[in-house]
Formats: sequence, structure tokens, C-alpha cells
Amino acid sequence: MTASSGLVRIAVDAMGGDYGPSETVPGAVEAARGGGVQIGLVGEPDAVKVELAKHDVDGLPIMQVPSEGVILEDEQPAIALRQKPRASIMVSTGMVKSGLADASVTMGSTGAAMAAGAVVLGVIEGIERPAIGGPIVGLAPHTMIIDLGANVDSRPTQLLSFAVIGEVFAKQVWEIERPRVALLSVGSETGKGNRQVRETTELLAKSGLNFIGNVEANDLPYNKTDVAVCDGFVGNVVMKLTEGLGSGISDHLKNRLEGKLPEVELADLARDVYEINNVTETYGGGPLFGVNGVSVVGHGRGKAESVRRAIETARRFVEVGFVASLNEELARVKQAVGE
Amino acid sequence: MTASSGLVRIAVDAMGGDYGPSETVPGAVEAARGGGVQIGLVGEPDAVKVELAKHDVDGLPIMQVPSEGVILEDEQPAIALRQKPRASIMVSTGMVKSGLADASVTMGSTGAAMAAGAVVLGVIEGIERPAIGGPIVGLAPHTMIIDLGANVDSRPTQLLSFAVIGEVFAKQVWEIERPRVALLSVGSETGKGNRQVRETTELLAKSGLNFIGNVEANDLPYNKTDVAVCDGFVGNVVMKLTEGLGSGISDHLKNRLEGKLPEVELADLARDVYEINNVTETYGGGPLFGVNGVSVVGHGRGKAESVRRAIETARRFVEVGFVASLNEELARVKQAVGE
Repeated sequence: MTASSGLVRIAVDAMGGDYGPSETVPGAVEAARGGGVQIGLVGEPDAVKVELAKHDVDGLPIMQVPSEGVILEDEQPAIALRQKPRASIMVSTGMVKSGLADASVTMGSTGAAMAAGAVVLGVIEGIERPAIGGPIVGLAPHTMIIDLGANVDSRPTQLLSFAVIGEVFAKQVWEIERPRVALLSVGSETGKGNRQVRETTELLAKSGLNFIGNVEANDLPYNKTDVAVCDGFVGNVVMKLTEGLGSGISDHLKNRLEGKLPEVELADLARDVYEINNVTETYGGGPLFGVNGVSVVGHGRGKAESVRRAIETARRFVEVGFVASLNEELARVKQAVGE
Repeated sequence: MTASSGLVRIAVDAMGGDYGPSETVPGAVEAARGGGVQIGLVGEPDAVKVELAKHDVDGLPIMQVPSEGVILEDEQPAIALRQKPRASIMVSTGMVKSGLADASVTMGSTGAAMAAGAVVLGVIEGIERPAIGGPIVGLAPHTMIIDLGANVDSRPTQLLSFAVIGEVFAKQVWEIERPRVALLSVGSETGKGNRQVRETTELLAKSGLNFIGNVEANDLPYNKTDVAVCDGFVGNVVMKLTEGLGSGISDHLKNRLEGKLPEVELADLARDVYEINNVTETYGGGPLFGVNGVSVVGHGRGKAESVRRAIETARRFVEVGFVASLNEELARVKQAVGE
């Protein structure tokens, strides 16, 4: 693969996710058809070939890259990576490291992607572990919540780095000039919360970021902040509760409105309520923040359209120069808070 | 007030909540009309009198108890209690302590109720601070989540006490013989989570409770456990996110279905979605767990019907002998875990 074409080169882990090649391949084909990207489909040659044969890929910038094995959702990532050094996630991430690709995309496992990202690409100076974040509450599609579960028991300096990641994200991807950054807490008064929140408040106050204090969880659907910073334990609860309520309420509506709305409209409504609360599944997931390279992790249950969107997301992050900007802003904030 | 009537004697903080006497008084009147309770309306004599005069209370077991001042939601409870020792929350809680009432009910502030409960009634042996819990996700009305924000940065022994409270609650109030007790965490495998969850797992394993391991936040709407135990920071996020999403989705449905459903049905639907996600506001709140007496705290925004239900809840807790049972079970579990 080369960049001479002007295309962004994306290494796609064709084996990842709940569905593997049967969804990753059509998603990648669609992305290639959309233009702007060149795809390396990383996977078991035969499995990928069979799927590719189902599509008209003539003239599309898609090539196959062989790998051996896949790391499943229930495997211990660190152990699995050692046992399967040629697994699809290792090969696709390695292509970014060696400059053969500009970004990698996988539909999971998230743990394996994080481990591969940290080991193969390494983390940016000032980051302790990769973080995951994104707009989770579809009613407020421009509120980025970070961390979503990659970092539990985070130290205040880690929460500060989440804030910086969120700020750079909101600036570059949503083009918000001076994004509002808030701490997710249990009271609206600045400093109210647990020890972690109180200590992080002191750092954020010195950071030069546009720190607006606390938001509460009931603020999350109402666009009260551009970036909501929290420990990964809390963010994971927010993400999964949103998904669970979305799916529960969607089912509730189906039962309650049966016979009261035309069947098609009811199905539409139920899907809508489900989708605005299952953003990562619907919209294709987000990057692994803090690694030295662009590595996008989609939702395991995501289908072809999610894969296409994850590839689109990866392209976007390459084009805006996200990693370089994050590096700069982290250095600036580190100096500001004197750490 | 005496118990010779066979009625449960409830001291109602008439000044509490966002609306004060204009909602607490009609709520209390309705409760008295329903039978089984005798009401002491604690508040500024004139303010309560004016409201009482609007109702036909002839022959109802309602009496007025004078107090001076009220503690507002934004006051520092500890300071306010010292400055206003005759405030309505202090008088109503004091009536339980002195045996003049079997239970007290307030619509807030929660902080003042907790402080008054801890100071006036004291906490049960084995409890460090009062806790708050209840069914928060209306789609799973028999899943009790505890703690909901009274205790942040909880030690594992505190989470163990939340588990015991939840177990006794589910046994007595929901009549579940051997309630399932789970830890709310970020992965389903037992022991997966943050340090707090891992350490609490060890205690719960030895507790003799029906400990089923972890649930994740997306399980909460699906009746996967009877009791979900978490730190108050996490529980507060769960409660407020549920409320926020319920209200956000309710508004979303109003817009999306305008003109597609008859106006009345649409209003019904929107209210339904709001209410199943705003359980404490709708159903009247729950007791302060772990204090030496029954003290029910309703939702500040609760109106008369919420007040009536909070009184009903208080009556129920008196009748089942909740405080004595909790004392016994805490002693048993303490011995079981060897703390």
C-alpha cells in the first residue's frame, strides 16, 4: 500500500467483531466505493476471499493482507497477543506502526485492540493507558463522554488527560472553537463529588481548558457540555445503562403502541429509540485515544454499515492530524498544571 | 399521639420539598383518609393551618405539631441543623426518637434528612452512614439499587452493608424469599471491575447472602438481580441518568409522534415514559436506610400523590419491623465475614 494515490490507507481487521468477514468485508467494500480510502483487508486469506467474491470489487482500491488467528472477546488480551502474534488485530495494528497504513480499524475485541494499540503503537507522552470516549447519548450527539471503561480507578492526572483528549476531539471533529469541559459528578457545585472528582477539579482549574465545573448525569441528554470527563468505571456504567434503557424503552413502546400506530411506523419508532441510545453500535465506534497512531474500534455487534462508518471515522482522524494535535495539547497542559 | 388506636403514627415534615404545605398537606390528608395512619403535620402553624382549611379533615386522625424554620436544598445540612434546631425536619425526626411517632416522612432536602436521621436517631450498629436505595429503573421495578448517592468513596465493608440492607428490603417489602444480590460492575465475570468491586466480592462471597456476582448497567432494566450494590457515586449517576434519559426520550416522542397519535394518547405515552424513568418522583421515595428508626425521604419535586405514597411507604416499613430485621441480619453477616 502506498499513499501516492492521495487515498488514506486503512488496515481493516476483517476477522474482528461478532460477525467477522461476513460483515467486515461488505462494510470495507462500501467504504472503498465511497472513495477517499484504500483498504487493506487483514484476515485468513480463504475466509476473506470467499466474502470478497460476493461483491463487485473490480477497480476498487482493496487488497488482502494475510493473518493467522483472531482474538476473541472472552480471551485475556495480553496472553492472547503473545500466543497469536500473527492475529488479525496484531497485523492490522502493525501496519500502522510500520507505515504501511495510516490507520487501523477493528470491530473488537476492544481489549485486544487496546492491548495491541498500547504494545505495538505505544502511548503518547503524558498518557498512561489508551482511553475510549465518544458521544454516547444520542439525544446530545455532541457531548463526548470519556473514559468509557478502558481505565478504572483512574488517578486525577489520567482524568486530566481524558479532558485534553476530549477537548482536541471536540475541536477537530466537531469544529467547536473552545469546547466546554466538565466533570461528571453527583452535584452541580464545582468540587462536589468523590475524592477523584475533587482532586481533578484542582488540576482542571489550572489547565487552561474551558473548564465549566460539574455536570450531573441527568444533564447528559441536554447538551450541557461538549466534553464530560469521568472514571472509566462510571463512563462504562453510563454507556451500558444508556444502551440498556434504550433497548428496554424501545421494547416497551412496541408493546404499548401495538395496534395504535401502523406497523411500519411503529417499527421505525422502536428502531429510532434504540439507535439514539446505542450510538456506538449505530454509528461505528470511535478511536483508541492516546496511542501513537489512529486505531478505531467499532462495536462488536456492528454490521457492515457500522464497519463502513468506523472506516470513515478513521479517515477523518487521519485527515485532521489528530495524533499530532493531541501530542501538542498534552504538552501544553502538562506545563500549565506543572506536572 | 399514641399508638393505642392501632394506627401507625407518622410525623410529616409539612415544610419540606419544593412545594411545602401546598402539596404535603393534601398528600397527608389523602393518606389519613386512606386509613391505617395517624398524621402529625410538623410545620409553621399558620402555613399548615391555611392549607388544612382547604380540606375536609373532620374526624381524620391529623394533628398539627409546631416547628420553626425549614432547611432548604442548598443549605449545608450540618450547619443548618445547628442554626435551626426547631426546623421541621428536626422536629419530625425528633418525634420518632422520643417515641411520639413510629416514622417520619419528608420530601427533602435529602441532605438535611440524612443529617437529622444520623444525629437524632443514630445509625444501626454495623452501618457507617445512612444509605439511600430503591427501585430506580421502572422497567425492572423489583431491582433495588443501593447506594444512590449518600455514600461516595465507600469502603468494601460499606458496600457489604448496602447488600444486607437491600436483601432485607427485598425480603420484607417484595417478599422474595432469598433475594439475588449482585455488584454493579463493568464486566459480567465475578471479580471484574475496579478495586472497590474486587474487594467487596471477597466479602460478599463469605456473607451467606445469595450473591450472584456482577451485573452490568445494561442488565438493570431486565430484572437480572433483586439487589444491585454500588458506590453512591455510581448509583447517583445511574439514578440521574435514568431520570434524564426518561425525560429526554419522553420529549423526543412528543415531537416525533405529534399528529400521528391522538393528543391524549400521546400525552399519556409521554407521561408513561417519563414516569417509569422517574420512579422516586412518581412513587414517593424511600427510607433512609441504616438509621435507628423509620425515616422516609420523598423526591423534592413530588406532589401530593407522592407525599401520600411516601407516607404509605413509611407505614409499610413500620409494620414489617424493618429496623429490627436489619439489625439482626447485619449482626449475622458481620459474624459470617469475620469483621
